[in-house]
Amino acid sequence: MDHQQKNVSKAVVARLPRYYRYLRRLAAEDVNRISSKDLASRMGLTASQIRQDLSCFGGFGQQGYGYSVETLVIELERILGIASSRRAILLGAGNLGRALLRNFNFSYCGVRPIAAFDVAPDVVGNAYRGIPVHSMDDLETFMSREMADIAVLCIPGAIVPQTAERLVKTGIKGIWNFTNAELREEEIGVPIENVHFSDSLMALCYRIQDE
Amino acid sequence: MDHQQKNVSKAVVARLPRYYRYLRRLAAEDVNRISSKDLASRMGLTASQIRQDLSCFGGFGQQGYGYSVETLVIELERILGIASSRRAILLGAGNLGRALLRNFNFSYCGVRPIAAFDVAPDVVGNAYRGIPVHSMDDLETFMSREMADIAVLCIPGAIVPQTAERLVKTGIKGIWNFTNAELREEEIGVPIENVHFSDSLMALCYRIQDE
Repeated sequence: MDHQQKNVSKAVVARLPRYYRYLRRLAAEDVNRISSKDLASRMGLTASQIRQDLSCFGGFGQQGYGYSVETLVIELERILGIASSRRAILLGAGNLGRALLRNFNFSYCGVRPIAAFDVAPDVVGNAYRGIPVHSMDDLETFMSREMADIAVLCIPGAIVPQTAERLVKTGIKGIWNFTNAELREEEIGVPIENVHFSDSLMALCYRIQDE
Repeated sequence: MDHQQKNVSKAVVARLPRYYRYLRRLAAEDVNRISSKDLASRMGLTASQIRQDLSCFGGFGQQGYGYSVETLVIELERILGIASSRRAILLGAGNLGRALLRNFNFSYCGVRPIAAFDVAPDVVGNAYRGIPVHSMDDLETFMSREMADIAVLCIPGAIVPQTAERLVKTGIKGIWNFTNAELREEEIGVPIENVHFSDSLMALCYRIQDE
């Protein structure tokens, strides 16, 4: 990673996937160049915020010419590490876990699920979209052999803290947390992204009031 | 809704549920007051952004005294419309739909799921956490009788556009879209929140590079 990228704030990083999503869509619509103003109005941001965010990574925009959509897509893929293909394991192959394995486009994010883990005897031994479900008892053995980067948590909230500790001991590098237990990085010691379904539902409720 | 709230940008609205989440947690930790600086450092924002965001709604902060956590929680509940109890229907009672019905805390957001809809004969007639699954054929009849505010979409991406149109005709006020089909408000005509799992996974991948 470049020195330049070291001090990028968490808020900027959180916006990069949105930039990537909008720019991929523009590329699909055969748009070659876009001004910060146009991009801003599509994304509900200000042009100056976009210029500021992208300048954290060295710019890419030319005054008066806007941004090259293709260059930005490629740069964002490099910055986000999409090309490096992370390996993921999924813990908890219940309804949500299976829905992710079956429907979520991991490869869009440069992530490859390699195994799932569960405790239920009727689930262990199955496979979803070719991903085998192992017993939770085999987590450490599996990790010492296969070494995944990311753990996706779809387990009951009550067992989340101890499971997170167990994962960190196996050498996991990051946790993608779908449970209602909020994990704090300062306690766990690796990067964590908590998925908050409620944030978007609340934003929707707010906007319905307007109607 | 107050006149004051009319021109709040989408970006600010998108941050309000995060404020609410952090403030609820502070309240649970018995914190009574918090400065914009402390709140900013917890949330990974700047103090001036927090002051600016909250000033859209009239402020609530006293110079030098910080914000009252309880007052902010109550104000955010009012602003977000959490007290008004929205009625929701869920379309598609597959793995993801069932996981939401079983595990997601709708009431935290002031939303009450009243029914689900599906096409599969072995799913229609079931109930999950007391929520009955009706046939998709009965959507219009149900809506004319019960009138839900929000539709939660967990259906296959291919049928999303026509289903969204169908929902709008029944009078739905907003759509919470979990499918991989991106819905555009300008085409559909009601507020839409697309849930983008990929955004947080990409942010996680980015942050793992740092380690």
